[in-house]
Amino acid sequence: MAASARIKPTIYLGAFVHSVALKELELQEKGAIGVDDNGVIAFVERDVQSIEDVREKHAAFKEADVVEVKDGFFFPGFIDTHTHAPQHPNTGLFGQTTLLSWLQTYTFPMESSLSSLPLARTVYTNFVSRTLSHGTTTCAYYATIHVPATNLLADICHSLGQRALIGRVCMTSSLSPPTYRDASESSALADSLASIQYIRTLDPSAILLHPIVTPRFAPSCTASTLSSLASLASSTHSHIQTHISENVSEVELVRELFPECTSYTHVYDTAGLLTPRTILAHAVHISPAERHIIRERGAKISHCPASNTALTSGCCAVREMLDEGMTVGLGTDVSGGFSPSILEECRQAIWVSRFRAMGGGDRVKISTEEALYLATRGGAAVCGFEEQVGGFEVGMLWDAQMVVLDVVDEERVGERGGFEGKGGVDVFGWETLGERVQKWVYSGDDRNTVAVWVRGRCVHRTGRFKG
Amino acid sequence: MAASARIKPTIYLGAFVHSVALKELELQEKGAIGVDDNGVIAFVERDVQSIEDVREKHAAFKEADVVEVKDGFFFPGFIDTHTHAPQHPNTGLFGQTTLLSWLQTYTFPMESSLSSLPLARTVYTNFVSRTLSHGTTTCAYYATIHVPATNLLADICHSLGQRALIGRVCMTSSLSPPTYRDASESSALADSLASIQYIRTLDPSAILLHPIVTPRFAPSCTASTLSSLASLASSTHSHIQTHISENVSEVELVRELFPECTSYTHVYDTAGLLTPRTILAHAVHISPAERHIIRERGAKISHCPASNTALTSGCCAVREMLDEGMTVGLGTDVSGGFSPSILEECRQAIWVSRFRAMGGGDRVKISTEEALYLATRGGAAVCGFEEQVGGFEVGMLWDAQMVVLDVVDEERVGERGGFEGKGGVDVFGWETLGERVQKWVYSGDDRNTVAVWVRGRCVHRTGRFKG
Repeated sequence: MAASARIKPTIYLGAFVHSVALKELELQEKGAIGVDDNGVIAFVERDVQSIEDVREKHAAFKEADVVEVKDGFFFPGFIDTHTHAPQHPNTGLFGQTTLLSWLQTYTFPMESSLSSLPLARTVYTNFVSRTLSHGTTTCAYYATIHVPATNLLADICHSLGQRALIGRVCMTSSLSPPTYRDASESSALADSLASIQYIRTLDPSAILLHPIVTPRFAPSCTASTLSSLASLASSTHSHIQTHISENVSEVELVRELFPECTSYTHVYDTAGLLTPRTILAHAVHISPAERHIIRERGAKISHCPASNTALTSGCCAVREMLDEGMTVGLGTDVSGGFSPSILEECRQAIWVSRFRAMGGGDRVKISTEEALYLATRGGAAVCGFEEQVGGFEVGMLWDAQMVVLDVVDEERVGERGGFEGKGGVDVFGWETLGERVQKWVYSGDDRNTVAVWVRGRCVHRTGRFKG
Repeated sequence: MAASARIKPTIYLGAFVHSVALKELELQEKGAIGVDDNGVIAFVERDVQSIEDVREKHAAFKEADVVEVKDGFFFPGFIDTHTHAPQHPNTGLFGQTTLLSWLQTYTFPMESSLSSLPLARTVYTNFVSRTLSHGTTTCAYYATIHVPATNLLADICHSLGQRALIGRVCMTSSLSPPTYRDASESSALADSLASIQYIRTLDPSAILLHPIVTPRFAPSCTASTLSSLASLASSTHSHIQTHISENVSEVELVRELFPECTSYTHVYDTAGLLTPRTILAHAVHISPAERHIIRERGAKISHCPASNTALTSGCCAVREMLDEGMTVGLGTDVSGGFSPSILEECRQAIWVSRFRAMGGGDRVKISTEEALYLATRGGAAVCGFEEQVGGFEVGMLWDAQMVVLDVVDEERVGERGGFEGKGGVDVFGWETLGERVQKWVYSGDDRNTVAVWVRGRCVHRTGRFKG
């Protein structure tokens, strides 16, 4: 089915949960959300007494399908603001490396091998399916330097129905490995443009797909390339994504490579890469002054806590960023990160903030509610999609997941294999909806996400989904 | 089947992995491990060419069953050295609390409710089944203050076939809540003794079950009770478990409650609770001098990183403990910890060590190999079972799990729901056995543990197990 094809109007009935502010979840036990034939939310009803009442009130939904959630709730689809699809086969392989040694040992060889389209097809299809199965409805992907494989990733997202930003990675610097590097700045720009044009042709109304200009990071590109890419993004009205200040040695390297700049942020600012459509991943080791510049430019932050922990990169100052009004979302950063799940990333963001709190006081702690905000509304704002996705509001798109939690069955308890097909959450029956959400965040996994929709189209479902 | 009943001799064929030293895993691609009718490992063969060769060499196994692992490996069962079965329904509920407020808000009310035997049956059956499904073959449990419910936990472990240490929790101090407290020291001692006697009667040869004397922690018991419990443990030859120095406010409280003692460790040492059969959970905020005393007494440490992170307790100095020759294992500490999985605890131990490394250098990092050692051999030594379980050696017991990792199926990739029943690990085919282990540790879950044995008896299996 084409992404733009009409769907059957549907009423999503039952509990729903979404962020209404950074620190506040709406917990609605008896909801009914009407989604029209274009995937747009037409109404959001609360404290619903019966489906008949809803149909009565909304004439256009008299014949609508009904999808009801039991023992769970609807939740907005997750937004992954930073991940590397070609690195997925390396997930879990990092050993004791840190960023720069990890890139050389694991990452560049793997990315380089994606010049093979059959391999790219297997890896990308697997990874996009994985992210969908974890409830990720929007994903900002780094591909590789290869145009055909990058375009294939776009094809796969389009075909599997995921909202995506897709970037051909640009690496012109002689510090990039000889076997995995753009031949020249002009070829790099031509390749990035070719990929942008391909994506625009594939999805001319940008129903799902957006190209994103992707200088890998400052050490991978010359100053000239960085500026040229900023111009390319501007002239093609594209998003921009790159990495910033992930690791102390990397920051030191950038200082050596760009002695004329006063900071890592200054390198990108000089190039014109800091725009309201720019996603900066990590930002672990930036100063308050750098945060100020980024905020002034309207650029956004992708916080990737799992990766920052796994690679011992450091702890991002998310509390300060939020207090200062910066826009922050979460990124899985596979395979620096070890999971394609934004739910896992919520937990990791909370752990990072707790480690910061051990040294610096409770104020920096990120709450469950805040983590879920970053995973949805925050991520949407990072991508510039905050008017369309991330919450349940009239006029927004139905990018959502159905979460089901298992109530402990006293009859089956202790049966051998009784947990098969169930997620990690045990509900005992007395939990409030808010407590169920807490249990989901800390113990849930992809088994609890039984169905996923993007723009009203079902893009993932498990055998447990009764649609 | 009674735990002592004879089983059919079995050859476990295929890859196996286990710790042979703190920093070293043995990775054997072509193994064959023979387990006799008493669940004891009779032989461990390596580089096996055919099952016929094995049968030829070991006459007693000519007719033995064969259980073969494909796309995976056998691994020793996990040892959970510290968890609270009655707190399982609260898993994931802790919000922004820290230890002392968390105990009052969540823990004591939940534990108190386990005076109900029907509730205890549901909770304990569910939790023991959960831990088995995650590959935990030995578990050190805290129950509640209630003798009948504690004895029920023993019954359930016995019936489900898990090796367990089971402790009635002792709380005599007036700081314990009036609704959840032992009536007096003498009743507490009588109740603890009754529970010890029940467990000894249930399993007179200690095939699976061991009683463990369990003063909750210093603030819950008077000095007199602590001493009396040490005597009880001594006279009944029981293990001892308690908590130590988990949280800064708790340490402060202990200082106020026991002004005659120079440290938290000194409180327990004065009472005679530090013995070679003592398991001390947490030990986050202990000084090098306290570590020295604990080591001198031969007491053991249960490191509970998930709990310490979730409750913002702090980071345990595991590297220093290991360097000093202390015995350390892992504990899930449900529900301060948010998962019944020791595999998750391996990851959390690694994250905690990485956060320490961010401030203190790479030397303190715990490697994947070390985490797996703590989860098996380390935990076994914490419980005093290091001669019986934790590795694959002739004369040890077959406490083991079969781990299966899914090879990405190019034909099925991208199929809707194609991940159902699979774990989080994607194997692409080129990975070495060592890399598969790494992927399992960082992305695996209970779906990858397809069968579990304790003393040769299969105590858990999923539909994917082809036995």
